[in-house]
Amino acid sequence: MIGGGTGTFTVLSGLRNYPLDLAAIVTMADDGGSTGILRDELGVLPPGDVRQCLVALSESQYFLRQLMNYRFNEGGLKGHNFGNLFLSAMEKMTGSFDKSVEMAGKILRINGRVIPSTLKQVRLIAELSGGRIIRGESKIHLKDLRALKKIFLRPRAEANPKAIAAINSADLIIIGPGDFYSSLIPNFLVSGIPEAIRRSKAIKIYNCNLMTKQGHTDNFTVTDYVKTIETYVGDILDYIIYNTKRPSSSALKRYAHEGERFIECGDKLFGRNYIGADLINKKIVKLSKSDPLASQRTLIRHDSNRLAKIIFGILN
Amino acid sequence: MIGGGTGTFTVLSGLRNYPLDLAAIVTMADDGGSTGILRDELGVLPPGDVRQCLVALSESQYFLRQLMNYRFNEGGLKGHNFGNLFLSAMEKMTGSFDKSVEMAGKILRINGRVIPSTLKQVRLIAELSGGRIIRGESKIHLKDLRALKKIFLRPRAEANPKAIAAINSADLIIIGPGDFYSSLIPNFLVSGIPEAIRRSKAIKIYNCNLMTKQGHTDNFTVTDYVKTIETYVGDILDYIIYNTKRPSSSALKRYAHEGERFIECGDKLFGRNYIGADLINKKIVKLSKSDPLASQRTLIRHDSNRLAKIIFGILN
Repeated sequence: MIGGGTGTFTVLSGLRNYPLDLAAIVTMADDGGSTGILRDELGVLPPGDVRQCLVALSESQYFLRQLMNYRFNEGGLKGHNFGNLFLSAMEKMTGSFDKSVEMAGKILRINGRVIPSTLKQVRLIAELSGGRIIRGESKIHLKDLRALKKIFLRPRAEANPKAIAAINSADLIIIGPGDFYSSLIPNFLVSGIPEAIRRSKAIKIYNCNLMTKQGHTDNFTVTDYVKTIETYVGDILDYIIYNTKRPSSSALKRYAHEGERFIECGDKLFGRNYIGADLINKKIVKLSKSDPLASQRTLIRHDSNRLAKIIFGILN
Repeated sequence: MIGGGTGTFTVLSGLRNYPLDLAAIVTMADDGGSTGILRDELGVLPPGDVRQCLVALSESQYFLRQLMNYRFNEGGLKGHNFGNLFLSAMEKMTGSFDKSVEMAGKILRINGRVIPSTLKQVRLIAELSGGRIIRGESKIHLKDLRALKKIFLRPRAEANPKAIAAINSADLIIIGPGDFYSSLIPNFLVSGIPEAIRRSKAIKIYNCNLMTKQGHTDNFTVTDYVKTIETYVGDILDYIIYNTKRPSSSALKRYAHEGERFIECGDKLFGRNYIGADLINKKIVKLSKSDPLASQRTLIRHDSNRLAKIIFGILN
């Protein structure tokens, strides 16, 4: 499972109910919000995405999982998730993010592994045609990338050996869903990861997003996502899982305001298995403070159980 | 065990090695440092002293106990102990400090109980003769109290029912050591606690401090401490454990700079058992960042094992 952010949380939350040995390889490019402050002030590696994966895989009591996502609302701690402070305190104490993720996994009794894609302090950088440079994932997230020429990490980063080992031993590699340029692609910019994926004999699945993102993936069809991913990792995908169910017109309207649109399948590429299904989560999304996804703006979300069922079906 | 601060940590650390059912009743007057910031900004109850007791009683791996005491050194988190953030996040989440202390106790697998003396938001207030008022434990800690007329909590606070229950069922009540007016006495200012101690048939032990404190307990003998405690809780003490070993002259000199002096026994009160012994910790105190007591200035400290041995001996 390669990704980061809410998409990875969703897939892991579904797959944890199946007898699988799960490993989540997580982007280390995040530099926004609580994570960004901790990186700047403490010099730690970004805890936010790792935290979400730990929570998704945790078999601890509900309370402890909620606590990890608890976000302070006042004073100097405002905006910090407790779990981010937990990971950062452990990193400062042990001097190793890798160790702190491993220990947090034990404390939270996770069923699986959470693996930072790299252990280097990296920043995501976008170069637009005309030479304009955008520095940092959180800025890139907000900016128009229609003139994107190149996206890369600085400094250059080698993969975490554990990430390579997990890819090498995988029977199934699941990519996405996730915010395309800020959560997903950064994993493929880590030296060693695309190479390992290419070498791997595992079945490779891509879970396409549900909606386009303005300035990043405007008018993308499912196949456009696939093609773009393959420019980074090569011609590797075996299965593409995508949503066929158009959200309600009221939801679509709300998204259109933000320039986000339903993703059509588009022309299917030869030699790939496209699996289209209704993947929309029908549950009303409550944006309560205690909801792990409360910080997410989106109301159109994947149904983690349906997604997991399709993925597991491919293996069997 | 009634107290707060480092003294309580020391006694509990020693007693945890004995087959005792330990309950620590902890002062809720603290409002300095990390604890004070959390009280002001988040409106939570003071976590600092509770955290120290939890760590003292924890049977978790060393790492987790260290983590609870880890103190951030940079940025907006500077000065906060991780354990304080842990307790405060849980209190904000559950809406109950009592519940959060109980849950933290489970997570840290404590052997015993940690009980806030009251669940009310209180401030310690000192009234000096002449009418001058000093508000707040952290200010009182630093100010001259030689003209102390009255010390009290505002608003008036009822005891935590769990604290009363623990006192009622105790075979042994251990008071101190601890910073006299800022850690120890505040427990006796909670309505219901002195009354419960007076009613109790338990053996009552007072562990006297090792050194006087300038402006608070200048020239106090052991018996002066005893008499002052008894003005708050009545004529109740059965045993008084005090140190007879004079620290090295170099250590004494250093303390004299701060106006702190070796406590002489003084005239013994009739009907009390005074147990004098060498209670000084001989281990060189390393003030490393990871030491739970690193924030403490004092180098003359109780030997927790010797103290515990004497206390346990009284019971048997």
